[in-house]
Amino acid sequence: MPFRFELDRTAGAARAGVFTTPHGDVETPAFMPVGTLATVKAIDPDDLRVMRAGMILANAYHLHLRPGDELVRELGGLHRFMGWDGPILTDSGGFQVFSLADLRRVDEEGVEFKSHLDGSRRFFTPELVMRIERNLGADVIMQFDHVIPGQSDEPTARDASERSVRWLERCLRAFTELEASGDAAGTPYSDQALFPVVQGGIHDGLRREGGRRAAAVADFVGYGIGGLSVGEPKPQMYATIEVMDETLPKDRPRYLMGVGFPEDLIECVRRGVDLFDCVAPTRMGRTGTAFTSLGRINVKRAEHRSNAAPLDPNCACPLCSRFSRAYLRHLVTSDEILGLRLLSLHNVHFLVTLMRDARAAIRDDTFDRWSRHWLERYAAGATTSSSTA
Amino acid sequence: MPFRFELDRTAGAARAGVFTTPHGDVETPAFMPVGTLATVKAIDPDDLRVMRAGMILANAYHLHLRPGDELVRELGGLHRFMGWDGPILTDSGGFQVFSLADLRRVDEEGVEFKSHLDGSRRFFTPELVMRIERNLGADVIMQFDHVIPGQSDEPTARDASERSVRWLERCLRAFTELEASGDAAGTPYSDQALFPVVQGGIHDGLRREGGRRAAAVADFVGYGIGGLSVGEPKPQMYATIEVMDETLPKDRPRYLMGVGFPEDLIECVRRGVDLFDCVAPTRMGRTGTAFTSLGRINVKRAEHRSNAAPLDPNCACPLCSRFSRAYLRHLVTSDEILGLRLLSLHNVHFLVTLMRDARAAIRDDTFDRWSRHWLERYAAGATTSSSTA
Repeated sequence: MPFRFELDRTAGAARAGVFTTPHGDVETPAFMPVGTLATVKAIDPDDLRVMRAGMILANAYHLHLRPGDELVRELGGLHRFMGWDGPILTDSGGFQVFSLADLRRVDEEGVEFKSHLDGSRRFFTPELVMRIERNLGADVIMQFDHVIPGQSDEPTARDASERSVRWLERCLRAFTELEASGDAAGTPYSDQALFPVVQGGIHDGLRREGGRRAAAVADFVGYGIGGLSVGEPKPQMYATIEVMDETLPKDRPRYLMGVGFPEDLIECVRRGVDLFDCVAPTRMGRTGTAFTSLGRINVKRAEHRSNAAPLDPNCACPLCSRFSRAYLRHLVTSDEILGLRLLSLHNVHFLVTLMRDARAAIRDDTFDRWSRHWLERYAAGATTSSSTA
Repeated sequence: MPFRFELDRTAGAARAGVFTTPHGDVETPAFMPVGTLATVKAIDPDDLRVMRAGMILANAYHLHLRPGDELVRELGGLHRFMGWDGPILTDSGGFQVFSLADLRRVDEEGVEFKSHLDGSRRFFTPELVMRIERNLGADVIMQFDHVIPGQSDEPTARDASERSVRWLERCLRAFTELEASGDAAGTPYSDQALFPVVQGGIHDGLRREGGRRAAAVADFVGYGIGGLSVGEPKPQMYATIEVMDETLPKDRPRYLMGVGFPEDLIECVRRGVDLFDCVAPTRMGRTGTAFTSLGRINVKRAEHRSNAAPLDPNCACPLCSRFSRAYLRHLVTSDEILGLRLLSLHNVHFLVTLMRDARAAIRDDTFDRWSRHWLERYAAGATTSSSTA
């Protein structure tokens, strides 16, 4: 069995574990940098190795449109294509066809939409998405799910949640058939694990039902939690995570999709989440905003103009260990690529390291104290920072 | 004496030497990557160290406008500011005020222009430019010169060339005074060498006169050759370089400003040039064009779509040693930052390595054969490449 999850230690609901995949171990909790188009934006795979990122993401929707999943397979799969030999997870594109593309029609069979690139008409079904993700060859692949707007009412959320479970069954069937048959030439696909995505909005009943029904379809290697961090109030998100923690099997990794800010990561680790991803660190890096141990910082502000100190005195990343805030501000305000590269690197390094620190705290049995102290310092920094606005 | 130039070996007019500066030795001939705004676009100083780039450029005009040369000095000078402890040369901004800015008026005193950034009115004199370059603190600083359009007639070229010599005298006086006085607080400036810029267009007489008069102003550490590669036919450029080779002191490094393409570098090394700079490798890198040992390649072309081979089979750069043409094309056509970073890296690595190879050939006494073979292969590749268009 190429996949395994070992729970090392817990602290309340928080968990420190090791998720084994065909391309290596992922120490959890972990933040997974997002490489939508087979590149973590502005970052080199070597940078990710240096910061010891465990697992990274890529996106089935985007890679299907370009360069094409068939081409990626022809070139040896995603790992070889993008020069990353560590674990990879592909998102199914469920989120993208419902948010990015021009959506035409959803029915029981699948989703018709127009490509955001060229307007071409496309039809995604659970079966097609499994073939795409098989071709890409990531270690973990997500089911194709029915995604709905953030605060949808209960009937809408129920409809989407139940459809997602039916699509999970179809995904599993296609996934298994492809495993048996191999590709058109009969060449076997690589070892992969399929994760369900549990939907249900902020409706506790739907979440419980969704989680139980997904786990009843099969004994999956791990579980995705979808449809959160899409505009709902933070307390509702946290409450929903607590419901999921009670519902999902304890001995399987839980992946909270699209969550991203440092404070959310810590609050959700506290509530039993193991894996996270988000485009925030790279997207914010490209617009001049930094996560730091002392709160969020807008690098472009004039107050940093002649500041010879590093961006974050508590950070050992390639930016903070070598350059001043003044230089970083100069790069960012001059639209220099090095600036957005260094800031993207810093932000990703920040979240990867934050989860490594959380893991150490869980193992040391100091998670509760560590996390409260961390959140206080981060919030105080944010206050100080805005008071000098 | 912190500056020294030792000629190791010659092959005809071609020279292999070592140019010693306060921040280290530069093995010549050498290509100097251009870091206009205190960053070689899309490249990290660590990348430059790995490829063993000897000396890099920055630009006085651009850095005066932002972030300001006073600020750079306050932060410890250009080396510390940009995290590069190797040799740096600053261009004076002569070229920029005549090409980039909105030029208002040139008289004997200096040049009035409007900033290309905010339209603010500025007045550059040789004295101000010396203060700017003193503040920036590069190892080698260029004189402020009068730059004219490429193929100007003899009277126009003579006027600008003679004014450049008079400005050289003023630059040297200001340079020496600042050395004696230090800055406003009396703090001494770092050790720097002032290079003249010899102008004169494609007029042999003016070039001879300009070179002799510059060398008569003082025994300079090295000499810049300006006003070439601005649209004149290649044979005229090469002929002018030959005139400069005869005119300039043999025991001083010669820096041909703004020259840039591989074939030009080799032809000009053959004619006695030691140092080069050009924005071409990074600018072309950002638009998808690569120098390779088999000719120039447009990476975006469909023929590279599924090519699993490296961009250049004879290159050991971080792009060619790890990624396929297919992946590079995917990155570039998707406007991914990693693509333009890797391609900029490759192009700069290519020229830095080309000059290192030229140096080795001069020392081995094989330069003539090596260079002819190299140019043939490069030209043949270019033909093959366009025949598959």
